[in-house]
Amino acid sequence: MDLALPTHVDEALATYLADRRTLGALMDENFTGAVDGLAAFVLSGGKRIRPTFAWWGWRAAGGDPEGPLAESVLTAVSSLELIQACALVHDDLMDASEVRRGKPTVHIAFAQEHRDRRWLGEPERFGLAAAVLIGDIALAWADDMLFAAGLPTDALQRLSLPWRDMRTEMLAGQYLDVLTQARGDSSPDAALRIDRLKTAAYTVERPLHMGAALGGGSPELIDGLRRFGADIGVAFQLRDDLLGVFGDPAVTGKPAGDDLREGKRTLLVALGMEYGADVLHKALGNPELDVETVDAVRDALVGVGAVDAIEDRITELTTSALAALDAAPVTAPAGDRLAELAVSATKRTY
Amino acid sequence: MDLALPTHVDEALATYLADRRTLGALMDENFTGAVDGLAAFVLSGGKRIRPTFAWWGWRAAGGDPEGPLAESVLTAVSSLELIQACALVHDDLMDASEVRRGKPTVHIAFAQEHRDRRWLGEPERFGLAAAVLIGDIALAWADDMLFAAGLPTDALQRLSLPWRDMRTEMLAGQYLDVLTQARGDSSPDAALRIDRLKTAAYTVERPLHMGAALGGGSPELIDGLRRFGADIGVAFQLRDDLLGVFGDPAVTGKPAGDDLREGKRTLLVALGMEYGADVLHKALGNPELDVETVDAVRDALVGVGAVDAIEDRITELTTSALAALDAAPVTAPAGDRLAELAVSATKRTY
Repeated sequence: MDLALPTHVDEALATYLADRRTLGALMDENFTGAVDGLAAFVLSGGKRIRPTFAWWGWRAAGGDPEGPLAESVLTAVSSLELIQACALVHDDLMDASEVRRGKPTVHIAFAQEHRDRRWLGEPERFGLAAAVLIGDIALAWADDMLFAAGLPTDALQRLSLPWRDMRTEMLAGQYLDVLTQARGDSSPDAALRIDRLKTAAYTVERPLHMGAALGGGSPELIDGLRRFGADIGVAFQLRDDLLGVFGDPAVTGKPAGDDLREGKRTLLVALGMEYGADVLHKALGNPELDVETVDAVRDALVGVGAVDAIEDRITELTTSALAALDAAPVTAPAGDRLAELAVSATKRTY
Repeated sequence: MDLALPTHVDEALATYLADRRTLGALMDENFTGAVDGLAAFVLSGGKRIRPTFAWWGWRAAGGDPEGPLAESVLTAVSSLELIQACALVHDDLMDASEVRRGKPTVHIAFAQEHRDRRWLGEPERFGLAAAVLIGDIALAWADDMLFAAGLPTDALQRLSLPWRDMRTEMLAGQYLDVLTQARGDSSPDAALRIDRLKTAAYTVERPLHMGAALGGGSPELIDGLRRFGADIGVAFQLRDDLLGVFGDPAVTGKPAGDDLREGKRTLLVALGMEYGADVLHKALGNPELDVETVDAVRDALVGVGAVDAIEDRITELTTSALAALDAAPVTAPAGDRLAELAVSATKRTY
């Protein structure tokens, strides 16, 4: 299971959603349209980063990939992708994003179906309703999938607190992101607080915590993995911020400077402003942002030293994360694998 | 606890949300705005009908209101109001409703705050995001509240299946409602299927099922209560449909004929169409519907016999529900109280 983990996660999700579709059809045949919409989204790719960290948190606590629990653990960690589906489907709706992973977003796809079938009412309103409900279904089913994974009661008991905290951290991070953008708060502090909740906690720290708790890891192990995860999570987000401005569209799959156009308040942008990269004011949240201005912003962010500051921060965070990992009582080979994940998450080009 | 149940539910919700606010403030002070928005909504009233049925399901299984579990059971059944908060906040957003219980709906209130504070971006987009996230928080916290209620593990285990099914039935009912309206499907069959999921299952049958399962009720008891709940739930919805057209605005708190204006595809409307009340076509979904047309629709619905048909159906359902209750091994005084609830839910004027 260790090797082709994302593929196993895909299979677990496909199996679970196929079962729910069968149950849904018994309830009402027309409900399958919503299930199919969710399945198409969930099974259309993604790095499966949260299940991967959760799996290795379990392995770090001594979980045996050939043991009798492995199948159940795989199902349990895969349920994190349903929480992520809720986050993304609702996020796309809130941001009015039209495309994700090269396909129409859920609200756009359902509005299009409404238009194609010449149904009654406004297509956009139907798309909104479908996206709200499909996100809700994903959130509810994440829970169902976790609790029906076949884990022993004591493991579920240990999981329940990190699971609870992770969901709230994700939703709080989303809310703070929306609020910060509305307030136009571009302080480095605000950017960092959102990174801590939205990415560090939700994407890395809590999945590791869940996995280790599931495996009955010691408080020392859990504490060490959480410190590793909190640092790597922020470093991961800082790399993302750099790619959002400097990434090659051919590799990232997003238009150049897309984060600037959306007006994202990242730490990179916050430092750029603080250090006097005034061209940012012209670029941020400007839907007609042209390539010349994107280039000017890039030059300015490099020129004022914001990029170096972020790269330094990524290096520091990675170093402290690896030290925390090193000091934690991690079962082999999870230590090596987590160190590799840390490096690939913070040095990636997409 | 039996007597002032809605007040006890209000208190349990207020306590739980105050705790979450304290925890939320530790995470980030700015998150409290979302918690306050949810609390204002949840604590602004409501009949607390789902917790009431769940409580009496537990009492029917022999639960002791003076016993050591009573506090935990109260907390557990109160969590149903958080699921309902998710349903209503998201429903108001999907329907673009501006007022509920005499107050601005969540998306309207947050858009107004955005406008008042002259924040950046579109107020409506901020209102949408806040309503999506507050509904999500309510759905996640319903779960947290249930699982942290202090119930014994075996009781939680028995609860998990009806809890799971109830959430999906609610969301499926919402989706089918939206889909049926878009398709313009005005068949009695479609209306009845939505009533079964949205109201019968979610509002009455599953809360009773949960309560009885919590109390360790026998399969005969659970089966009897579920049959009682399914019938009373549909009867409850049919009464609601009648009030939506014939209700006195001074008592229901909604403008006369509001259901017609919204274009709701109720069984009453479906039968009216089938029996030839052609004036319905002019009225349904017409935002400029005037009082004369509302009167004409009322006369037509009475004239073609749709109202009598619905009243007959309510009577039949109530009779069969009470027979199922009578035959079930219900612990006193729950039988009498459930019979009273059945009558008040189906004969009410608001």
